[in-house]
Amino acid sequence: MSDGRVRAVIDALRPSVDGGRFAVKRVAGEALEVEAHCFADGHDVLRARLLWREEDARDWQEVEMQPLGNDVWRAQFTPQAIGRYRYSVAAWVDAFATWRHDFARREDPADQALAALAGAFLAEAAAARAGGADAQQLKDWAARLRAAGKPEQVRAAALDEAMAAIAARHPDRSLEARWDVDLPLVVERERARFSTWYELFPRSAAAEPGRHGTFKDVEKRLPYVAELGFDVLYLPPIHPIGRERRKGRNNAVSAAPDDVGSPWAIGAKEGGHKAIHPQLGTREDFRSLVKAAEKHGLEVALDIAYQCAPDHPYLREHPEWFRKRPDGSVQYAENPPKKYQDIYPFDFECADWKALWQELKSVLDFWIGEGVKIFRVDNPHTKAFPFWEWAIAEVRRAHPDVIFLAEAFTRPKVMHRLARLGYTQSYTYFAWRNTKQELTEYFTELAQGPGREYFRPNVWPNTPDILTEALQVGGRAAFMQRLALAATLAASYGIYGPAYELMEHRPREPGSEEYLDSEKYQLRHWDLERADSLRAYIAALNRIRRENPALQADGSLRFFHTDNDHLLAYGKQSPDRSNLIICVVNLSPHHTHGGWVELDLGMLGIEPDRPYQMHDLLSGARYLWTGARNFVQLDPQRSPAHVFRVRRRLHREQDFDYFL
Amino acid sequence: MSDGRVRAVIDALRPSVDGGRFAVKRVAGEALEVEAHCFADGHDVLRARLLWREEDARDWQEVEMQPLGNDVWRAQFTPQAIGRYRYSVAAWVDAFATWRHDFARREDPADQALAALAGAFLAEAAAARAGGADAQQLKDWAARLRAAGKPEQVRAAALDEAMAAIAARHPDRSLEARWDVDLPLVVERERARFSTWYELFPRSAAAEPGRHGTFKDVEKRLPYVAELGFDVLYLPPIHPIGRERRKGRNNAVSAAPDDVGSPWAIGAKEGGHKAIHPQLGTREDFRSLVKAAEKHGLEVALDIAYQCAPDHPYLREHPEWFRKRPDGSVQYAENPPKKYQDIYPFDFECADWKALWQELKSVLDFWIGEGVKIFRVDNPHTKAFPFWEWAIAEVRRAHPDVIFLAEAFTRPKVMHRLARLGYTQSYTYFAWRNTKQELTEYFTELAQGPGREYFRPNVWPNTPDILTEALQVGGRAAFMQRLALAATLAASYGIYGPAYELMEHRPREPGSEEYLDSEKYQLRHWDLERADSLRAYIAALNRIRRENPALQADGSLRFFHTDNDHLLAYGKQSPDRSNLIICVVNLSPHHTHGGWVELDLGMLGIEPDRPYQMHDLLSGARYLWTGARNFVQLDPQRSPAHVFRVRRRLHREQDFDYFL
Repeated sequence: MSDGRVRAVIDALRPSVDGGRFAVKRVAGEALEVEAHCFADGHDVLRARLLWREEDARDWQEVEMQPLGNDVWRAQFTPQAIGRYRYSVAAWVDAFATWRHDFARREDPADQALAALAGAFLAEAAAARAGGADAQQLKDWAARLRAAGKPEQVRAAALDEAMAAIAARHPDRSLEARWDVDLPLVVERERARFSTWYELFPRSAAAEPGRHGTFKDVEKRLPYVAELGFDVLYLPPIHPIGRERRKGRNNAVSAAPDDVGSPWAIGAKEGGHKAIHPQLGTREDFRSLVKAAEKHGLEVALDIAYQCAPDHPYLREHPEWFRKRPDGSVQYAENPPKKYQDIYPFDFECADWKALWQELKSVLDFWIGEGVKIFRVDNPHTKAFPFWEWAIAEVRRAHPDVIFLAEAFTRPKVMHRLARLGYTQSYTYFAWRNTKQELTEYFTELAQGPGREYFRPNVWPNTPDILTEALQVGGRAAFMQRLALAATLAASYGIYGPAYELMEHRPREPGSEEYLDSEKYQLRHWDLERADSLRAYIAALNRIRRENPALQADGSLRFFHTDNDHLLAYGKQSPDRSNLIICVVNLSPHHTHGGWVELDLGMLGIEPDRPYQMHDLLSGARYLWTGARNFVQLDPQRSPAHVFRVRRRLHREQDFDYFL
Repeated sequence: MSDGRVRAVIDALRPSVDGGRFAVKRVAGEALEVEAHCFADGHDVLRARLLWREEDARDWQEVEMQPLGNDVWRAQFTPQAIGRYRYSVAAWVDAFATWRHDFARREDPADQALAALAGAFLAEAAAARAGGADAQQLKDWAARLRAAGKPEQVRAAALDEAMAAIAARHPDRSLEARWDVDLPLVVERERARFSTWYELFPRSAAAEPGRHGTFKDVEKRLPYVAELGFDVLYLPPIHPIGRERRKGRNNAVSAAPDDVGSPWAIGAKEGGHKAIHPQLGTREDFRSLVKAAEKHGLEVALDIAYQCAPDHPYLREHPEWFRKRPDGSVQYAENPPKKYQDIYPFDFECADWKALWQELKSVLDFWIGEGVKIFRVDNPHTKAFPFWEWAIAEVRRAHPDVIFLAEAFTRPKVMHRLARLGYTQSYTYFAWRNTKQELTEYFTELAQGPGREYFRPNVWPNTPDILTEALQVGGRAAFMQRLALAATLAASYGIYGPAYELMEHRPREPGSEEYLDSEKYQLRHWDLERADSLRAYIAALNRIRRENPALQADGSLRFFHTDNDHLLAYGKQSPDRSNLIICVVNLSPHHTHGGWVELDLGMLGIEPDRPYQMHDLLSGARYLWTGARNFVQLDPQRSPAHVFRVRRRLHREQDFDYFL
């Protein structure tokens, strides 16, 4: 029997991911708000505190929790450093607070006199716990309470605010209740929450057509990428490309002698996951690129694809890491009747799994050693989940600033598992959400659903694997519209360029989402200076994102009613509510649409009878709106989206002295 | 590092109350449906099983789970005996099922030949696990798979259904994943879920006015209570009533010499919680009453009120169980400025708490020894929660058939805690839910909210403490309407009689919910034969409850739209859907109301183009309805409610042979 005198109860502590099995995520400087149901039997007064500490710290920090009514208590703390933390809640029936609460309501002077005596006992007990100056003050106070006197004097002494404050600092917590799990919190750097990605194939970065691009060429491309406003430069795999069973252009089964192959067919005689494809340059060239990118405010993100081309050195050095067919040959990837004979997956059920895990993790460590802090992981859902949980935790133990993006376009529960077990960010279904209802439902779920504590969406209107039908047929308006949606709906988004800004839209064949003449299998040359490029539009959106904290987090997203199903309206605001962005997007790439937008003024903190200014940060135009309902019209050929900054304070005649 | 080769993942197992901290509740013979998200990396085929056992059993029973899509798996089991159980889920990547799934899709004969060989290895491995006849069959099959032959022969051998079924019986579960908590389930007897309560004061049960009633008088009342259709007869405390500071009629501070006092002021020189008030009779009389009640299909429920009158023997024998005031006097109950000087609460923070707990539990054991199996607990929310959790578990360990009803009219989170820590049933806010919106929201929450796994509502239109305004002013129609709602909305309900059937409605003073001349403080004499008594109406409703399984559980409750805010429509059905009840209630006690009721035919399993019969079990009238929308009109002066049994199968011309 544990101590049955613990009368306080703590229930429903949140946030909590699977009861503490996985960590809640925040970034440094971002508050964690904690709520719990705290109560006890009867009418006694409770106190509750939020406890938190860095995982390796011995002592807890404590924050007094405030009751919100209905037995819900709340407090928050703001972790300043990245790393792992723990938090919990303690609550106790507070004899002193109960005594004071009751005393204030006592009407009978005889009762008050007796209660003052009881208070003296409590003050003396608090003094014994206190020590120092507080102890002396509490002892003096106990003496005053014992001194009795006229009813008014007794009452004044008992309800002395200053003494109550001192006593409250030294509560009797010997019978406190404690939440039974120290819940984990992972605090990452700001880019975990707010990032803007640009993907390019280095081999297509040569200035002149036909030549294989190099890291040096990418270095020359940095000013362009920086001018567009991105902060992450993501490169597909940069390793030697297998020659055995190499795929040709447009995924042809056999490659021509001069075909460059897929960067995801990793490994050849020149090396594997820790080597660099010779045609791209040297280790020194790569280091130079990483450093140069940094100077442009760009971080280089590498692709991690744990799979092997048939001529990867692992096949020779570690055949035990691969599954064998009954004829002794190595099992290639397959999903019958489809065969992927150019790719060998690792066997995560092999007997030597510990060595395999160590080697795969050493790939991450190797590139971290080369200055890489962001990894985009290819198809993590086809590798064993326990490996990821272990590897990400191990890497983060030494390098808490490393970011992992999961490229798992798969079933929802699998994507959520990857996010919970440690991935910083996750690709999403955004590419296939087009209608007002689809976008509203999906992004409401992302912002407010249970995943909000651990699933950070990174939305991409295109990738080298995904040229959506919307982009194939929607023309320039569709590219602008999908970009505006991505940049404002999600704090992290990315594009695969220059295909995006140059509006590449031809599929390999009708009904396919593959690009025709995809860079996955061949070099491409892009004319970045084309007059119709979207580079200026992209640069404007990314500047707006940098200048407006509202767009740098996802939790505040709310959708607003419009009376036209082609008009999508939504808003986001900064945690201090000083920065408020409202977007209205015409979802049709073909026709002008107008309609009434109905804002939730209460939520936005706008007074219903005061005008406010809507400043379109894309066009520079300013509109004066009043009340919840206002009319908007958008011509997709000119601009499919308004990105309004709401200017809440406007003068009107009442603001002047002479008005009153 | 645990075994990293366990690739299957189990998530989101439900039902689960606080991750297994508290038990899910069912009754014997009621199925427990369990769902979990089960998946693994890649495309391999998964299998999953629900595991369950009686808590003390060594071996698990297993039920194969079925995938519902979206990685959700489901299975169920039906515990037949009352007691404590555990359940969990196991899942594994199944090499054999994966092999067979892939084989069926292979098109290349060379691939098939190789896969057949792989299958032979799997069959041999299964044989090694199997033993017995299965082992021989699997070995023979392995030989067939090795024998090769023409592609059709290979394919036929590999996809042999009978062999697949045998192999599936002997899976390789060496790398299975297991939910990490064995979740608790409490299985109670049917009355825990479906019960109909009648509360009466034995001292008012005398046949002639003015005499103090006895257990013998209650025995004579049993046929009446049974005729009304109740199955639980609940008695307020039957113990000696304190004389010190006894309250007078209508809660007067001082009692007149002949005042009988409140039964909740427990304890006097004749004894305390294990004694019987001498004016009610002897222990033998009580035992006789319990037995006689049983013969009428009635169980006697006792009131447990853990508090003492000033002259309770505990005060003398165990002063250490009570809090002292600074002047040495015992602390009476108070909530300043209110004082309850006739009641002394126990101090659950006293040093001797273990002895206090044992003594309080011994009260339950004592009455269980006298044949009582149902306790209605007075104000459990003013006693320490850990005590209840311990006491209920301890009692149930020896007597798993004991039922506890929590009389906690308090804040929602406190009520839910009591339900989770072990109370079988809970009083609710029903008495104060009157409008269509209030009733719909509250009962939807009860039936479908998270509490549905542990919070069993017991709804009372009145109690000796609660004469609602609705009953004070609504007349006979209000009494009928509230009764019909209680009897059909909740599987467990009760009334305080004969006040209810005799429509006692005078409050002590305007604005009060206390009865005038309440039985809590004086004897009353009731004329059960009054012509306007609701006894026939009550008997009819209770008969309908007994005859219709739909009304004997709460989970299936669904509300239907009506176009008149005074008309409430809802339905319930039995687990096998064979019994379907639809109620329509006019919530106004004053006016006739009519309107269109819109059923959800799909949910109810009624075809939209077929007529169905609505048989009003109260009036006997039958109506022919078609489609979702039908008109209903109710005159509250005649009958405020329809309780329809839906008769789904009706003949029409197509049913006859000659129609086609």
